[in-house]
Amino acid sequence: MSDLMEMLIRRGFLWQSFEIYGGMAGFIDYAPLGNNLRRKIENIWREFFVINERVAEIDTPLIGIEEVFIASGHATSFVDTAIQCKECERVYRADHYIKEKLNLEVEASMDAIKEVLETYEIRCECGGEFGEPFSMNLMFSTKIGAGKGKNAYLRPETAQGIFIDFKRLSNYFRDKLPFGVAQIGRAFRNEISPRQGVIRLREFNQAELEFFVHPKEKRHPNFGEVAKDVVRLVDKFDKEHEISLEDAVKKGIIASEVLAYFIGKTRRFLLAIGVKDEKLRFRQHKDDERAHYATDCWDAEALTSFGWIEIVGIADRTDYDLSRHSKFSGEDLSVFVPYETPVKVKRRKAVPKMSVLGPVFKEKARKIAKALEGMEVNNNEIELEVDGEKIRLTKEFFEIKEVEEEITGERIVPHVIEPSFGLDRISYTVLEHCYDKDIVEGEERRVLRLKRRIAPIEVAVLPLLSREPFTSKAMEIVSVLRRSGFYTDYDDSGSIGRRYRRFDEIGTPFCVTVDHQTFEDETVTIRDRDTTKQIRVKIADLASTIRELMISERPIEEFGEIFR
Amino acid sequence: MSDLMEMLIRRGFLWQSFEIYGGMAGFIDYAPLGNNLRRKIENIWREFFVINERVAEIDTPLIGIEEVFIASGHATSFVDTAIQCKECERVYRADHYIKEKLNLEVEASMDAIKEVLETYEIRCECGGEFGEPFSMNLMFSTKIGAGKGKNAYLRPETAQGIFIDFKRLSNYFRDKLPFGVAQIGRAFRNEISPRQGVIRLREFNQAELEFFVHPKEKRHPNFGEVAKDVVRLVDKFDKEHEISLEDAVKKGIIASEVLAYFIGKTRRFLLAIGVKDEKLRFRQHKDDERAHYATDCWDAEALTSFGWIEIVGIADRTDYDLSRHSKFSGEDLSVFVPYETPVKVKRRKAVPKMSVLGPVFKEKARKIAKALEGMEVNNNEIELEVDGEKIRLTKEFFEIKEVEEEITGERIVPHVIEPSFGLDRISYTVLEHCYDKDIVEGEERRVLRLKRRIAPIEVAVLPLLSREPFTSKAMEIVSVLRRSGFYTDYDDSGSIGRRYRRFDEIGTPFCVTVDHQTFEDETVTIRDRDTTKQIRVKIADLASTIRELMISERPIEEFGEIFR
Repeated sequence: MSDLMEMLIRRGFLWQSFEIYGGMAGFIDYAPLGNNLRRKIENIWREFFVINERVAEIDTPLIGIEEVFIASGHATSFVDTAIQCKECERVYRADHYIKEKLNLEVEASMDAIKEVLETYEIRCECGGEFGEPFSMNLMFSTKIGAGKGKNAYLRPETAQGIFIDFKRLSNYFRDKLPFGVAQIGRAFRNEISPRQGVIRLREFNQAELEFFVHPKEKRHPNFGEVAKDVVRLVDKFDKEHEISLEDAVKKGIIASEVLAYFIGKTRRFLLAIGVKDEKLRFRQHKDDERAHYATDCWDAEALTSFGWIEIVGIADRTDYDLSRHSKFSGEDLSVFVPYETPVKVKRRKAVPKMSVLGPVFKEKARKIAKALEGMEVNNNEIELEVDGEKIRLTKEFFEIKEVEEEITGERIVPHVIEPSFGLDRISYTVLEHCYDKDIVEGEERRVLRLKRRIAPIEVAVLPLLSREPFTSKAMEIVSVLRRSGFYTDYDDSGSIGRRYRRFDEIGTPFCVTVDHQTFEDETVTIRDRDTTKQIRVKIADLASTIRELMISERPIEEFGEIFR
Repeated sequence: MSDLMEMLIRRGFLWQSFEIYGGMAGFIDYAPLGNNLRRKIENIWREFFVINERVAEIDTPLIGIEEVFIASGHATSFVDTAIQCKECERVYRADHYIKEKLNLEVEASMDAIKEVLETYEIRCECGGEFGEPFSMNLMFSTKIGAGKGKNAYLRPETAQGIFIDFKRLSNYFRDKLPFGVAQIGRAFRNEISPRQGVIRLREFNQAELEFFVHPKEKRHPNFGEVAKDVVRLVDKFDKEHEISLEDAVKKGIIASEVLAYFIGKTRRFLLAIGVKDEKLRFRQHKDDERAHYATDCWDAEALTSFGWIEIVGIADRTDYDLSRHSKFSGEDLSVFVPYETPVKVKRRKAVPKMSVLGPVFKEKARKIAKALEGMEVNNNEIELEVDGEKIRLTKEFFEIKEVEEEITGERIVPHVIEPSFGLDRISYTVLEHCYDKDIVEGEERRVLRLKRRIAPIEVAVLPLLSREPFTSKAMEIVSVLRRSGFYTDYDDSGSIGRRYRRFDEIGTPFCVTVDHQTFEDETVTIRDRDTTKQIRVKIADLASTIRELMISERPIEEFGEIFR
């Protein structure tokens, strides 16, 4: 186990779920510190992608009825190929097992797997033979209600809850494109045999944004804000670029401005929470790698001890989902888009000739004439249906009148650009990228250099000595800080140096110490985690000073004279 | 449908889930405004019950392995009795169906249900006969992994995730009682036939706090803060009391100080988010009403259009859960509690008499002597086991030496006090209690008098006229407010009065208007939702003024001169 992982468990960031019952792969517990960290990352995401955009957030059920996933394609396409040992009955995900044993990249199709198994005579770790490969759907299934019940699944992504609400959502935005809808919450994937700890989870946390645009206007109103940002791109031919987003769009490396906008915005968000720029890149999916719903996809990848891992996917899902749900539900999921100026078009319309229709069609003539009236004539024949009978009318049955009509707009099915964030991997990446060791006063120190805003414990209050009146005064200050809304801890055990180290290790940006001088002039010291520098402030100003420090990354010396 | 419900759907608070596929009872979508409202209520809960207490928050999986729920008792006890029609195959929850048809309260046991069905010859709504009643477990079940998979359930409460982590949690708090652990998230209950909309959900949101105390010290360090609060209690004999919490504890109406503390704290929280005191009471569960794990339980009940509904349950779960998990997992889930001062106890210890043992026990004598040495003597005989053989020794085989020993503490299994909040019902109650109509300028107005802090849209920016330069200026102000973190909306369609009404209806506390004067002196107006009073402030001061207004309920006139 790595140094970091040991710390994360010991100090209460992440724990193995169901540990007292032997654990279960693919599940983790967010312990007190990890929970605070992830929630804070969620809130910053909300600022970036919801509050500051024309975006609304919704929260829909985690259980979804079968119909949703038949329409979305998950019921048929969201599968992996599995192999099971005939002896020990253990099941593996076939492509992962082959990669592990033969270091061979293999397509996950049944045929490909079967061929490799036979060619290389691969065996189970127990020595047993494998049976026929089989396909396994990765959704957890359940039943709603009593009796036979209704088939349902745990959602494999939060996105579908948004798509099926599209009509109401579009109405919420008064049918004016572009707009976005976000969702933050759990999603589930019944992985066959997950082995990578926090990286491959069966139950995970997503933050997804579905941004609906006009199919012919894949732009973003705020693109200017990020256009000049230089990003590291790896295109689908594995070619690397260090290039501004503006230029990447111009050169066609990124297909649309709106995709480029979300790459830029994603990068800014990741940097804001402490992902390191030099360990971040955006990689385009290869043609055979994309999900069943995407035409283009860029992953934000972070370099960690697991190698480069995907932490965000930014996909152009086109109108795939809305069109499918429209088809399967029978609901019209299009939006009426008015033209800036109405368009005038000339149409050729039929005017029935009763004198010709009458003798030929007898008693039906009147009905035919009624149906024919005003129909558009594109060539010189018209086909229509009367009482279930198809009738073809040639030119002699009608005259053609030219009419000018005003068209005010058109109905379109929006396209969707989806930045989808894996919050578990992002939280873990932040922890890895911020974990550091340095030398303080001749001793090695472990320090988690978290951005102040995401620190799980924001302030620690320490009485210099573990006795009255230091302890009571410190507890009083704890109450004040807590009432101001800060995650505040109190610690009076061990030397002051040891206590500082304890809070350095979990990334607490500020330690407040009650010392002898406190009782002379109502001041306390504030110590900065990264520099270990200290200033002295009035207790009365403490909460406001901490607040200013927390919302910025301003150095502590701007708030008082350094005395150490 | 009520006026309120119509508004909630139309404006985007709550929607029926899976609406385009015909919907599914027991599931709701939090639409944009409802989502913000509930998230804000969660954050205030966090302030009350986590940040300001010795409480940590964790986040554990929604899927739980079978072992957890066998130990917790849910696998066997979390059941309802169902009846199914032989004709139409519809399934009902038996006690609810009987109550509906006969207005008869019936115990949910199989025998009782059977008797009532036979006695009253109850039939299905379709006219069909019912089959034998059957028991249905209310947990959603699923399988983890491939092949046969592992049995698992969706959690019926967040609490179990806390109990099974108890050892690590206790360690996090350095084994020092009392401490609390909270969890906010989804829980699931596969209701047989839910019919009450937002009130009876199959997938719902809980905020639970498990507060671990010494079984003999059911007190709370902060009880003083709420001791004098007068609350409305209905005890288990249906007797009503308007009484201070202090007196309720003294008189034994509430069994312990710590239960009383959480009743008081719960009431303060509910009032802070807008539940009306006159529509709030605390009702004690009757002896036959409590869950399988509770010895005492008080529900916070709110009066709504559904009658009095439970919105919070505050239960004393004793050591039930920890003891069960300890037994089923084999892990010691006790805490070592040191005495304030070590206790000295005198013990009588055996000293073997080899001279007597030798002749009687021959070659076994040495082993027996070794086992005997230092054993505590309570009466004048000792029973011990040597090599699997039980041996009883009377007084002549040993001498008794009196020894004084120091005992520093004892191991105890903590008791748990659990305030459990139903966030969906609470959110709905707040909406009902805050929904109001009044007359403004001779016209009826619908206004949602939400506490400012939980308003889903905090500020609306309105250009007086829907044209340049009003619109651009308004959009500029929108950006400034959004960057300051406010949920800000923009609206330029319709008369200004109509737009004010639109935001009154969804509870937006402040409307900012860009008018002619804005271009003369860089000021805008702020209008207060409840009073419709307006003040004028500099654009430069707008964000800070709104911030001050939002975190308090101070009247708008304290921030500027009323001009209208």
